[in-house]
Amino acid sequence: MREPILLPLDLPELDVDLSGGQVRRTVHPSGLRVLTERMPGARSASIGFWVGVGSRDEQAERDDAPGSLGSTHFLEHLLFKGTPTRDAYAIATSFDRIGAEHNALTAKEYTCYYAKVRDADLEDAVTVLADMVTNSVLDPGEFETERGVILEELAMAADDLGDVANERFFEAVLGEHPLGRPIGGNPETIRAARRDDVELHYRERYDPSTLVITAAGAVDHDRLVAQVLAALQLAPDERWRTDRSAEPARRVQRLDDAAATEAVSAGQDAAAPALHLTDRPSEQLNLMIGTRGLCSADPRRFAFGVMNSVLGGGMSSRLFQEIREKRGLAYTAYSFGASYSDGGVFGIYAGTAPEKASEVIELARLELERVAAEGITEEERERALGQIAGSSALALEDSDTRMGRLARAELGSGELYDLDASLERFAAVTAEEIREIAGVLAARPLTVVGVGELGRSGLSA
Amino acid sequence: MREPILLPLDLPELDVDLSGGQVRRTVHPSGLRVLTERMPGARSASIGFWVGVGSRDEQAERDDAPGSLGSTHFLEHLLFKGTPTRDAYAIATSFDRIGAEHNALTAKEYTCYYAKVRDADLEDAVTVLADMVTNSVLDPGEFETERGVILEELAMAADDLGDVANERFFEAVLGEHPLGRPIGGNPETIRAARRDDVELHYRERYDPSTLVITAAGAVDHDRLVAQVLAALQLAPDERWRTDRSAEPARRVQRLDDAAATEAVSAGQDAAAPALHLTDRPSEQLNLMIGTRGLCSADPRRFAFGVMNSVLGGGMSSRLFQEIREKRGLAYTAYSFGASYSDGGVFGIYAGTAPEKASEVIELARLELERVAAEGITEEERERALGQIAGSSALALEDSDTRMGRLARAELGSGELYDLDASLERFAAVTAEEIREIAGVLAARPLTVVGVGELGRSGLSA
Repeated sequence: MREPILLPLDLPELDVDLSGGQVRRTVHPSGLRVLTERMPGARSASIGFWVGVGSRDEQAERDDAPGSLGSTHFLEHLLFKGTPTRDAYAIATSFDRIGAEHNALTAKEYTCYYAKVRDADLEDAVTVLADMVTNSVLDPGEFETERGVILEELAMAADDLGDVANERFFEAVLGEHPLGRPIGGNPETIRAARRDDVELHYRERYDPSTLVITAAGAVDHDRLVAQVLAALQLAPDERWRTDRSAEPARRVQRLDDAAATEAVSAGQDAAAPALHLTDRPSEQLNLMIGTRGLCSADPRRFAFGVMNSVLGGGMSSRLFQEIREKRGLAYTAYSFGASYSDGGVFGIYAGTAPEKASEVIELARLELERVAAEGITEEERERALGQIAGSSALALEDSDTRMGRLARAELGSGELYDLDASLERFAAVTAEEIREIAGVLAARPLTVVGVGELGRSGLSA
Repeated sequence: MREPILLPLDLPELDVDLSGGQVRRTVHPSGLRVLTERMPGARSASIGFWVGVGSRDEQAERDDAPGSLGSTHFLEHLLFKGTPTRDAYAIATSFDRIGAEHNALTAKEYTCYYAKVRDADLEDAVTVLADMVTNSVLDPGEFETERGVILEELAMAADDLGDVANERFFEAVLGEHPLGRPIGGNPETIRAARRDDVELHYRERYDPSTLVITAAGAVDHDRLVAQVLAALQLAPDERWRTDRSAEPARRVQRLDDAAATEAVSAGQDAAAPALHLTDRPSEQLNLMIGTRGLCSADPRRFAFGVMNSVLGGGMSSRLFQEIREKRGLAYTAYSFGASYSDGGVFGIYAGTAPEKASEVIELARLELERVAAEGITEEERERALGQIAGSSALALEDSDTRMGRLARAELGSGELYDLDASLERFAAVTAEEIREIAGVLAARPLTVVGVGELGRSGLSA
């Protein structure tokens, strides 16, 4: 079986054919990493500036501050608001005038600023992204305006009951751990946010050692590295132009499996799921049912992938068939895993009429337990492998998928898989391994989150 | 200036290079049309079976039935539920085992069943889609189950206040016209729906003359035509295997400009917008502000495209700058046009705190009026052209965009534009034409839809 390519910081220049593309990697003396994947025939490119800092790295309480929760996301917004040479309008215009698809996202373990552009426009995108990420002025007036924008973003999410259920689910499953917190903070922390705290976050966390630049599509590695160094005003052998520490940022807290299990299961009957209910006027009750899952590098992730495909990964999956196709109880029913460096969640989602909530919860539990007890059929295993192979091949046609994959390998597992090498691993998973991982999940304390019209549901905590 | 390619039914075989692809078209004696666009280097293909029937073609009242509203969408669901040789599980499995991205959608003027697959899987997709679309059994038991699924889909949409605002907006702007109706019907019509009515809809409306099959990506036209004819069991010179009429389905009602204007503006002060408010508990008020827009073939659509880009088409647009960037009143603010064969809407969306609703409505009106009065700057015009050119080029890299573009040209305008020919038209738009189209829209009676917490908004009808 082919091994993944490992990405240690002291690896010399990497240049390798991978999944039909050519992957190259350069580690600059400052710690800055640039990875590219050239795709034959591409006429456009996706580029991302990734900072290895996410909401989990925030500190709930600083000595003298009301808390920095949401400051990573607040900072992401502010980086669009201006540098000494470009105001917010100039930044917006520089992307719009080339028709770029561009945005930014804050996740639990990283923040990303990205753009997809025609090949001829790549240098423009590099120049503006580099300026935004390293030279933001964090203007106090813009800070106040953006506070309003972020409060509206939170209000929009609060009106989306599926979003609310998702955040409650992470909180319920992961307990007090930083991975369980909402990425954007909450209205209280955003109202209390102070510019100096966000600036401190910027100064402490945005550093060459946490910055990874990845690009895929119509991209020439050497030219891109030169453009990046020029845009960052870094000489090829220079460490960094400020006196910031090049010490890589480290996670402030690690998820302890045992402690998290305990937090989730405290005071609950082992056989009864912990119910977390939020009453909101609605037509549907948004249900999330699940437990702690696998971390990104867990060797059982390939077995989980096959199991998840069969349980809830498509229209032919067991959950979709039992909940929607046979009984018409929901429009959507699926299962998913979300993995981070040292923990994760496994969940099942369904939106259903409140009166049917108990039935749907029971069906979801039964299907998970059935895979744990009986495993899956050979026909299901083959279908899952076909689904993974087909959907992976389609996904890798998009330069943004490849751009993101490079960054997640670099910032996360440190392993880069060729598509075929990855498919070999899925194919090598045995029926027993699939049954086993379902068994591990089914044995963990189950959490049920319900958001919506509780009165008609018969559910109570 | 290059002219578009016209697509009359009596056109002999078409074979032309277009926007970097090779477009071919075959009209079968039955009326069936097959269009393909071969994209050099593509390893996958998107295929769609498009039926020229949408929710606007439904009749609100039949002589003996409570109404067929929502039957087009109900039928779309049922086509996944089985044929004489494939049950619902077999259909789902045949897509999942190749990892296809597949789905269906019902729009106001067409229904589409599509899949994106690796090149080697294209024939499988053709076979299953053809069987679904032409041989559905519409099983009575499945009909009842699917009624529940559709009611859940409507419930999900009812919980999404942005969706609710969008439907209210079409109803308010287009009045009683069928284009103004919600695509999926409503819970009352779905509860009342009868299998025989939906079957009649299927028999009357699904016909070779309304069926258009389009594919883009790694596709060989001759091979695809042969596969389609084999899957539909049509000889190359055969008209159709049933005794159904090959008379093309026609729209049951045309939108009359004057009547619709009258319906919208009835009883309203010309200077005051017509307010349509829906009270729902929420954090944000979802606002839609607009009026009737352009039909698909309106020659002013290129001027509208440039105007819309400047007014509300990106982060540098006037609406985004005024509402979000300068004042922090919303997370999202944009303008859009939706065009149909004989009418359309123009709208502005923003979600804001209820207390700020009046201010946002006023800002949106002012910005539209400002473009109508003063036009746009040359710098804005150039930026809009760059945005249209860049985003069009990026969009055309996806085979599903090209697949959809072929179908909309065939079923809609009957004109197929090369990318460069289309960009020439945008570039030829004068500043005066841009000001003019803004003036036309600003002079029409304005409709304001608000969905959310009205109590704090100060708005009242």
